Amino acid sequence: MPIVPPVLHPPFNIVRVSHVEYTVTDLARSKAYWVDALGFIVTAETADALYLRALEERNHHCVILRKGTTACVRVLGFKVYEEEDLDRAARWFATQGRPAAFVDVVHQGRTLRTTDPFGMPIEFYTAMDQVPSLLQHYGAYKGASPQRIDHINCFTPDVQRSYEFYSAMGFRTSEYTATEDTDTIWAIWMHRKGGVHDLALTNGYGPRLHHIGVWVSQMTDIIRICDVLSTTGFLPTMERGPGRHGISNAFFLYLRDPDGHRIELFNSDYMTVDPDLEPKRWSLRDPQRQTLWGAPAPKSWFEEGSIFPGVDVSEPTLKAQPIVAH
Amino acid sequence: MPIVPPVLHPPFNIVRVSHVEYTVTDLARSKAYWVDALGFIVTAETADALYLRALEERNHHCVILRKGTTACVRVLGFKVYEEEDLDRAARWFATQGRPAAFVDVVHQGRTLRTTDPFGMPIEFYTAMDQVPSLLQHYGAYKGASPQRIDHINCFTPDVQRSYEFYSAMGFRTSEYTATEDTDTIWAIWMHRKGGVHDLALTNGYGPRLHHIGVWVSQMTDIIRICDVLSTTGFLPTMERGPGRHGISNAFFLYLRDPDGHRIELFNSDYMTVDPDLEPKRWSLRDPQRQTLWGAPAPKSWFEEGSIFPGVDVSEPTLKAQPIVAH
Amino acid sequence: MPIVPPVLHPPFNIVRVSHVEYTVTDLARSKAYWVDALGFIVTAETADALYLRALEERNHHCVILRKGTTACVRVLGFKVYEEEDLDRAARWFATQGRPAAFVDVVHQGRTLRTTDPFGMPIEFYTAMDQVPSLLQHYGAYKGASPQRIDHINCFTPDVQRSYEFYSAMGFRTSEYTATEDTDTIWAIWMHRKGGVHDLALTNGYGPRLHHIGVWVSQMTDIIRICDVLSTTGFLPTMERGPGRHGISNAFFLYLRDPDGHRIELFNSDYMTVDPDLEPKRWSLRDPQRQTLWGAPAPKSWFEEGSIFPGVDVSEPTLKAQPIVAH
Amino acid sequence: MPIVPPVLHPPFNIVRVSHVEYTVTDLARSKAYWVDALGFIVTAETADALYLRALEERNHHCVILRKGTTACVRVLGFKVYEEEDLDRAARWFATQGRPAAFVDVVHQGRTLRTTDPFGMPIEFYTAMDQVPSLLQHYGAYKGASPQRIDHINCFTPDVQRSYEFYSAMGFRTSEYTATEDTDTIWAIWMHRKGGVHDLALTNGYGPRLHHIGVWVSQMTDIIRICDVLSTTGFLPTMERGPGRHGISNAFFLYLRDPDGHRIELFNSDYMTVDPDLEPKRWSLRDPQRQTLWGAPAPKSWFEEGSIFPGVDVSEPTLKAQPIVAH
Repeated sequence: MPIVPPVLHPPFNIVRVSHVEYTVTDLARSKAYWVDALGFIVTAETADALYLRALEERNHHCVILRKGTTACVRVLGFKVYEEEDLDRAARWFATQGRPAAFVDVVHQGRTLRTTDPFGMPIEFYTAMDQVPSLLQHYGAYKGASPQRIDHINCFTPDVQRSYEFYSAMGFRTSEYTATEDTDTIWAIWMHRKGGVHDLALTNGYGPRLHHIGVWVSQMTDIIRICDVLSTTGFLPTMERGPGRHGISNAFFLYLRDPDGHRIELFNSDYMTVDPDLEPKRWSLRDPQRQTLWGAPAPKSWFEEGSIFPGVDVSEPTLKAQPIVAH
Repeated sequence: MPIVPPVLHPPFNIVRVSHVEYTVTDLARSKAYWVDALGFIVTAETADALYLRALEERNHHCVILRKGTTACVRVLGFKVYEEEDLDRAARWFATQGRPAAFVDVVHQGRTLRTTDPFGMPIEFYTAMDQVPSLLQHYGAYKGASPQRIDHINCFTPDVQRSYEFYSAMGFRTSEYTATEDTDTIWAIWMHRKGGVHDLALTNGYGPRLHHIGVWVSQMTDIIRICDVLSTTGFLPTMERGPGRHGISNAFFLYLRDPDGHRIELFNSDYMTVDPDLEPKRWSLRDPQRQTLWGAPAPKSWFEEGSIFPGVDVSEPTLKAQPIVAH
Repeated sequence: MPIVPPVLHPPFNIVRVSHVEYTVTDLARSKAYWVDALGFIVTAETADALYLRALEERNHHCVILRKGTTACVRVLGFKVYEEEDLDRAARWFATQGRPAAFVDVVHQGRTLRTTDPFGMPIEFYTAMDQVPSLLQHYGAYKGASPQRIDHINCFTPDVQRSYEFYSAMGFRTSEYTATEDTDTIWAIWMHRKGGVHDLALTNGYGPRLHHIGVWVSQMTDIIRICDVLSTTGFLPTMERGPGRHGISNAFFLYLRDPDGHRIELFNSDYMTVDPDLEPKRWSLRDPQRQTLWGAPAPKSWFEEGSIFPGVDVSEPTLKAQPIVAH
Repeated sequence: MPIVPPVLHPPFNIVRVSHVEYTVTDLARSKAYWVDALGFIVTAETADALYLRALEERNHHCVILRKGTTACVRVLGFKVYEEEDLDRAARWFATQGRPAAFVDVVHQGRTLRTTDPFGMPIEFYTAMDQVPSLLQHYGAYKGASPQRIDHINCFTPDVQRSYEFYSAMGFRTSEYTATEDTDTIWAIWMHRKGGVHDLALTNGYGPRLHHIGVWVSQMTDIIRICDVLSTTGFLPTMERGPGRHGISNAFFLYLRDPDGHRIELFNSDYMTVDPDLEPKRWSLRDPQRQTLWGAPAPKSWFEEGSIFPGVDVSEPTLKAQPIVAH
């Protein structure tokens, strides 16, 4: 039984996943995709960076696109409950033998930067600059009408080890996929904020970012963006979907931005705030796990991801593989 | 029994309602509403007129907005099947004692202009300039994503007399409202193209145009435009809805443009191409006739309409009244 | 240029495609699928047959499922405008050298039975028994909430020849696919009632029925039936979709009933009543033709179909092939 | 400034609102409404009670309907994080001078029963019997496809006093309505679980329960239930909507069960987990507060509610009134 009991009193209080900072190789091209096509809002723009937020968000940004020479992911950001949680976090990472340092980051103040056991760069802060929610500025809606960042999904070469690290931080499990024979975890979905996940871990060459998940209000928003992308020159960016995941129940669409960074637009997962919620187990052999309606995912979806600069990617220890489309 | 048998071999072949020409008092203001807010497409723009079409339409326009000093409706346009139908129509109107004249109209060629028994200006043509359908130009969708003109609804002071006139022209009845006691028709829905209506007639001070009906693809398009209008300064233009009509089954929203011209956006009526389709009768006393879900329409919806220039408006002969909201 | 001018004054007036009679091998199993899962309404049930209609329909049935030993399609039915059209049809088929005979068919009266040049059995009638529309009996909606039969799609070994035959009957072309090099028609969509099609013809081993198309009111109805089928034991019946066709703009889902008969559930095509509507050409090489969003159709979708009893199936003369999923 | 700072470290940890126990006067009639019409699931049924849950819920029930002679609400239930929170709660209520007693309640174990300052009966427990989620049992979906209980809304004669009591318990404010002149709170929305509310308080004769809010997955689910209720004999149960609230952004429908207990079905509020989220203020004079699209609520919606047995109802101290429909 590879699932460990949830840590109900974690060493520090993470509220939710908050933001991702990407390196992109052509800011104008990225803006055309994220802003003009998908409908993200530009909160701020500098010579070398775009700060984006989704429609309901009051935090300054959920995505930073920074100009660079190699497409990659610079950091994954989490919001903690209060200032003191940053100090608690610093102490905890020290006990884990993970170097952590405080830096002052524009728009989000005192920030703790560290890495997980595989070197994946993560950061914690407590208060980001607040800006107006555009939730009821319906005139500003376009593209996919993205509402808010919901989760990140990461490849790791050892899901069990990564899972135990994040579980110790207080992430609680909602669902997981395990191999039939050895009952080894192949992928796991963990949350802090009471949805299916803030953080998912998937078996694969890692650490790499598989995708960020962005919540949209209605399933019809996803159909609309399929129509828009496929008829405005962005057909090649549509990687998978629309479809329904068995895991999480999400109605999903997977996109690849101009640098290959993967974005999931989704709707209709469920609430997980109850601390006694039992994790749901799926077999790696069950194809409805990935698509309730039956169509397998393309190979690229299982194999490609965004690297973290300077972080070595390792081969996964678990060799079991899901069914893929040819 | 006030319903007459359908005329299965009409004197000339009307394909469908095609367009409406309005006089508006401020073109820029009208453009802001019809184009920027509702999402109609500008096919052509002159110093004093805007030619608009909806997204799937290949005809040059379904709405003309012409600058003038008094808001009114200049003409209601119908497309006939072939050139010879114009001549057949001319002969038929002559037999009805209705003056009719051929004029040459830009974008639609030879056009027969005439009036109905109450003086309502109507015109017939067979081939309008063709332009690209934007049905799959999803990047051009905005506002309500209007798809096509579907029908016109007119006040008449004598529904029975107007009904018999249009019935003789080949309009077939799909539904009607009649008084409980005398079984007198209070309103009637008639079609040529196989939907619930191309033309509806409603008891009231007339002739006046009650509204044009514009079809949208999904009910969620109507919810979206409610959100957009109500948060971009156009809340006062929302007159009624959204709701479901008992009659026609339409999921509807009624709007008033800056000159008070009424526009219905709707979805989900049904097919009526079968010539043996029996008209459906509703009682004027049945409130679900107007709103299946119960809420009565506002008074303005029953009382206000767009005039035709120089055409006298008469009091309706039938005094029965539906239930209205206070 | 393989497209012929539309026949604007056809020899007899076909209103629309009306019904299909299938042979199925297990009536109870078919009922479980069509009625309990998909939501068709049983108008009548005999020892060896089920008469089904969709929710808005007033005709007695659009589908007959008749018990037999071999799954096949017995006849494709069309409604004509008036009684005299049956006699006009009989005369026309005689001139085409196609044997035609009048039979009396329960629920639909005098019926003309004949075949097309490849032996595909078709029949014509003018008045079917009328039953209540359940359009506003929302308590009876379930499964996919099917609204009405819309079209049939048939494999033919020679699309050009079949097309010319049906065109001469008055079917008008809305869209077609042609080979890039020789401009040979590979598939064609033709209508009588003013939608994209009543009848489509596809290159392949034929004559066979490819599918019947059933219109649903909203795209969300299709998402719902995907969820229902995939979680109630009917996952294997989901062959393709949901997705958006480039051709016709339909949001589609393809299903296979327990005997392999293919059913398309779809929403959102467009209006084609204008006689001057130019047919839209697609290249066989354009993958967005079949799926606007990019995913190719499975091989089975191109290769499998329902046979007509006693009718020989021929190899198609045109060898060009579309792109398929592996 | 009537808003107090949020209590970030509350005396005990409430997870969310969990359930409501009603007295109803005719169990069979209530079952026909809640189960057959609205689509709630029966988890258990006894001679005098029905235990209902919504589709995604794993808790044994969110609604108990108990047979009685007078329609009323017996208790409002909240889930706490862990067993010890019950003891912490008991101590805290003691310090507030509110009598509290532990009882053992079937299906939910040790339960703390108490009342708020106006005598409203509330209870706390930590672990309810777990049952299967039907989230992906799509064959069981019907009616409104209710997904989960989301919130309760209560009339109180003194919103400020009630608000301060629940705020001290850790409920955080998302939105509130205040009078223009005196800046007095007229209504307030407070949450524990990171949505717009678990508990709302409204100025009026109280304490009474205004409604429970039940979340549905899509706006189209609400349109569907309008169609079903209005055509299956339940039209009189439709009190208000569908519409969009300004407050909370909910797309809503208000219903009254056979005993007059009010149920809100809604979709599309937003996430509030960030502890630094600033409450949003609305003016009582702003009609878009109650309906973004403009239509005022009926008088009954402001005046009627469910009583608590043996609890005196007091006149509100604040006399300001919102705009209502005539």
